[in-house]
Amino acid sequence: MVKIVNNPKISKIEGVRIVPLAQISDERGSVLHMIRNEGPLCEFGEVYFSEVLPGKIKAWKRHKQMTQNFAVPLGQIKLAFYDDREHSRSKGKIETLVLGRPDNYYLVQVPPFLWYGFQGIGSTPSILANCADMVHEPEESESHDYTNPDFPFLWK
Amino acid sequence: MVKIVNNPKISKIEGVRIVPLAQISDERGSVLHMIRNEGPLCEFGEVYFSEVLPGKIKAWKRHKQMTQNFAVPLGQIKLAFYDDREHSRSKGKIETLVLGRPDNYYLVQVPPFLWYGFQGIGSTPSILANCADMVHEPEESESHDYTNPDFPFLWK
Repeated sequence: MVKIVNNPKISKIEGVRIVPLAQISDERGSVLHMIRNEGPLCEFGEVYFSEVLPGKIKAWKRHKQMTQNFAVPLGQIKLAFYDDREHSRSKGKIETLVLGRPDNYYLVQVPPFLWYGFQGIGSTPSILANCADMVHEPEESESHDYTNPDFPFLWK
Repeated sequence: MVKIVNNPKISKIEGVRIVPLAQISDERGSVLHMIRNEGPLCEFGEVYFSEVLPGKIKAWKRHKQMTQNFAVPLGQIKLAFYDDREHSRSKGKIETLVLGRPDNYYLVQVPPFLWYGFQGIGSTPSILANCADMVHEPEESESHDYTNPDFPFLWK
């Protein structure tokens, strides 16, 4: 058994937290930490998964109330943020992160009102796990198409 | 978008609950429900993943305090239970379940003191997600090798 924990990372976007997660590997397959009911990260509402097929894009979306906690236990995704929050220190900024094992296995906490999107960049389906602090409510989220020109980011 | 929910299933093992989970599919990849903070299923302790490679076996294990909630968002696994609990109506019974999409996407709740194990039966790595009702504590679980002859089940 080998325990891997990647180096800490700091987001450029206000309110985004990036926390290294342990991967305990053995020859049968790895045990992969995600989130515990302790500390400031965690208020539990719902766990669900968003599969994203190779090359496909799920963007843009934001929640008005929900804080999300993302991890990618299988596959590789590119996650992008666009911050247009009026009073944010990072207003106007784009950030992209790659998430996936073994080098980029992190918990990423996404605050409300931040636009996000993601793309499958592996050769097989990827899984984005989300542990959210509230149960899904369709009315509290907004979406735009990934081609919307108001977003200063080109998905390839 | 197509929403799939499989038929209900009833476990032969006392205390095991099998709950159909929604799969909302589109051409980019599916959204897969797992667990919500509502109803009797849910007390939140920790979410983690156990990867299991094709053909590999992770068995046997039981917890003395933890109730676990399993789902398999990617891949296919065979899950087996062995009930040797003294006062259980299903004492002595083995049960096996296949978990995986699209036909066997279920939440399976596993009570304390029930032996369980699982095997990757897909051609690619499988992910067993576990939402447990407490944070991992090494002392409250026990393990036996999958070849242990006290268990009336042969892993292939």
